[in-house]
Amino acid sequence: MSDIRETAAASRQASRILAATSGAQRTATLHAIAKGLRDNSAKIIAANKLDLDAGKDAGLEPSFMDRLMLNEDRVEAMAVAVEEIAAQTDPIGSADSSIVLPNGLRVTRERIPLGVVAVIYEARPNVTSDAAALAIRSGNAIILKGGSAASHSNAAVGEVVANAIASSGLPKASATVLTTRDRSEITELLKLDDLIDVVIPRGGEGLIRFVAENSRIPVIKHYKGVCHLYLDKDADAEMAKAIALNGKVQRPSVCNTVETLLVHQDAAEKLLPPIIEELQANGVTIHGCERTQKLGKDIVPATESDWEAEYLSLDIAIRVVDDIDAAIEHIQRYNSDHTEAIISDNIGATQTFRSRIQSSCVMINASTRFADGGQLGLGAEIGISTSRLHAYGPMGAEGLTTLRFVVEGQGQVRS
Amino acid sequence: MSDIRETAAASRQASRILAATSGAQRTATLHAIAKGLRDNSAKIIAANKLDLDAGKDAGLEPSFMDRLMLNEDRVEAMAVAVEEIAAQTDPIGSADSSIVLPNGLRVTRERIPLGVVAVIYEARPNVTSDAAALAIRSGNAIILKGGSAASHSNAAVGEVVANAIASSGLPKASATVLTTRDRSEITELLKLDDLIDVVIPRGGEGLIRFVAENSRIPVIKHYKGVCHLYLDKDADAEMAKAIALNGKVQRPSVCNTVETLLVHQDAAEKLLPPIIEELQANGVTIHGCERTQKLGKDIVPATESDWEAEYLSLDIAIRVVDDIDAAIEHIQRYNSDHTEAIISDNIGATQTFRSRIQSSCVMINASTRFADGGQLGLGAEIGISTSRLHAYGPMGAEGLTTLRFVVEGQGQVRS
Repeated sequence: MSDIRETAAASRQASRILAATSGAQRTATLHAIAKGLRDNSAKIIAANKLDLDAGKDAGLEPSFMDRLMLNEDRVEAMAVAVEEIAAQTDPIGSADSSIVLPNGLRVTRERIPLGVVAVIYEARPNVTSDAAALAIRSGNAIILKGGSAASHSNAAVGEVVANAIASSGLPKASATVLTTRDRSEITELLKLDDLIDVVIPRGGEGLIRFVAENSRIPVIKHYKGVCHLYLDKDADAEMAKAIALNGKVQRPSVCNTVETLLVHQDAAEKLLPPIIEELQANGVTIHGCERTQKLGKDIVPATESDWEAEYLSLDIAIRVVDDIDAAIEHIQRYNSDHTEAIISDNIGATQTFRSRIQSSCVMINASTRFADGGQLGLGAEIGISTSRLHAYGPMGAEGLTTLRFVVEGQGQVRS
Repeated sequence: MSDIRETAAASRQASRILAATSGAQRTATLHAIAKGLRDNSAKIIAANKLDLDAGKDAGLEPSFMDRLMLNEDRVEAMAVAVEEIAAQTDPIGSADSSIVLPNGLRVTRERIPLGVVAVIYEARPNVTSDAAALAIRSGNAIILKGGSAASHSNAAVGEVVANAIASSGLPKASATVLTTRDRSEITELLKLDDLIDVVIPRGGEGLIRFVAENSRIPVIKHYKGVCHLYLDKDADAEMAKAIALNGKVQRPSVCNTVETLLVHQDAAEKLLPPIIEELQANGVTIHGCERTQKLGKDIVPATESDWEAEYLSLDIAIRVVDDIDAAIEHIQRYNSDHTEAIISDNIGATQTFRSRIQSSCVMINASTRFADGGQLGLGAEIGISTSRLHAYGPMGAEGLTTLRFVVEGQGQVRS
């Protein structure tokens, strides 16, 4: 058996034990992990320094180095995040429904863990403890493969996590950090569909496509977020401006920011000029259609590629559309099934938008920036899905479970 | 654009319209399909005769020919099945939960269709109308690719279905039957992950492995059902016998029959002899472990391959085990995650079995034969899943939907 298959087989074995543990046991394990992180903060920071030094030598970008960096505050934040997951309701064993059939059989849809979860990610070492904690909360074993730039940090966090798990009486193999720098190890991992139930890649589009194209295991993923904000004819002007601003400038580098603003032609003259001004005052470059260009200064003419763009920067595409149908058609053509928002006081318009837009998050008179597991009440996120199978949208601990059938009878046979 | 991509693009377009239709509209469409089947019964039977003649010439097996054959009663049964699906509760738009967060946002988990579903199947022409009806019920467009032996029958049923859909005002491309006999068409279809959301193969293990290995689209599948029945030390003798018999002999060719019987050593002497006798009286060949061989006559010694066998015939493997732990370990090693049953009057034993066995269906004091969408109250089945992502166990119309987030606000922005 290869090393990686042996590791995954140990994870599978651990998952069987985990699945039958009580919620209280797993909560205790999570508190042990939080304590382990605090007690070993200095050790983790020392390991992180090795990654930072190597990163500096390799000339990594400042934003990348910032994501990689750990200090006492950040390790404390990791411990707090694990405690928050410990405080979540345990999903395992809860039932979505339980009915008694005419023949007396009780049929219960009961939540059980997925089994073994693999997470493949890039530079943030906090993903190691967050993802391990979400897996334990939901009774799953986890295999963690972080980016090679964070390998010392991930190994240190992984050791703390595994020791805490073992000290609380659960199998050490419940959480395994893979630390080799070899990409062929990922390729091999992705073939183990008999031992691993789901793979969640987190990072840039390149990593995600690599995983999707090489995996025999089901993948939960989102490639990108080209989020649209549509201002209807009956949009409140102040609300429209506040949500457009919040959607673009509050944190432009993340996937739930607004990339394209669509405006009903009857409202464009009223709504757009102050929005364009305010966006520009905040340093945003406007890429506008012809009609938009007439409503402001310094507007870059938009081309086809702007409608497709996930800028993740202080850029926005703006298009004036004939009506709500044209807005919906634009979205159906260019969207990424992440998050779309409408601002309107007209209930017919919001209902039309809601029923015709099939994105994972639809916002009605609210900012796209709320498309986030923490903001929507799920607790920490293990990932976001923009394909519809299994999970659609932000995914927390419950997303790492499935519903099975338990049938309780009194000797019934089928006739 | 290739023909098959063009077909799938039309399905995607139809799915957008379907997703925004009302439940009443789709119910009317289903009644139009049922009427179409009845009105065109003679035409469908004539097309079926072409397949039957070709099958006879090709020397197909009688059981295969029987699955392929349509007559007036069977077409009527197809119409009735569609009407039963029409009578089901419409899943689209229903909410699993709706909460108001402290900031006033209402967050609703709302059910929407998956989009475009492809079903790849073998000889039964009734799958064409059943699967189309389940797709329409749940607001999905569907692409149907049946076996070439049933191509005339499927084309005739498909035309009736598509005409009924068009006459009721929905897009004809809501249900498309592919009729070429070319397997490369399936391979091409399986690459269209931008146009098709899920593929469900139904048929033998060869077809299912072919689809799983060639698909870029998520696959919902089950390879086989090696179902176990465990008779605990505290099993009621009459119940144990009745359920063992029902599990093996009522319909041995289907995936939810019992293939392996495990018996606690303390109960084996009491329970097994009458069960072995009764099974043998029903023509069943017993493949037993050494301890089983002492408890009956004409028992074939079981080998490793018997524990792995999905017989689908009047054969059963029987093993006496030391205790419930040994039974669970046997199941964890050999099972297919389909259905496992325990017979016991001891609540501790049933709880242990339920928490440690992670199969898609767990039966407590009930026959494995109930592992079926119709029997468990789901209505007709689109398929069965033995992998845990998205659906686990029998899957009906609701299995063709997903939950997304709808967030209703009053202008909230994120701070």
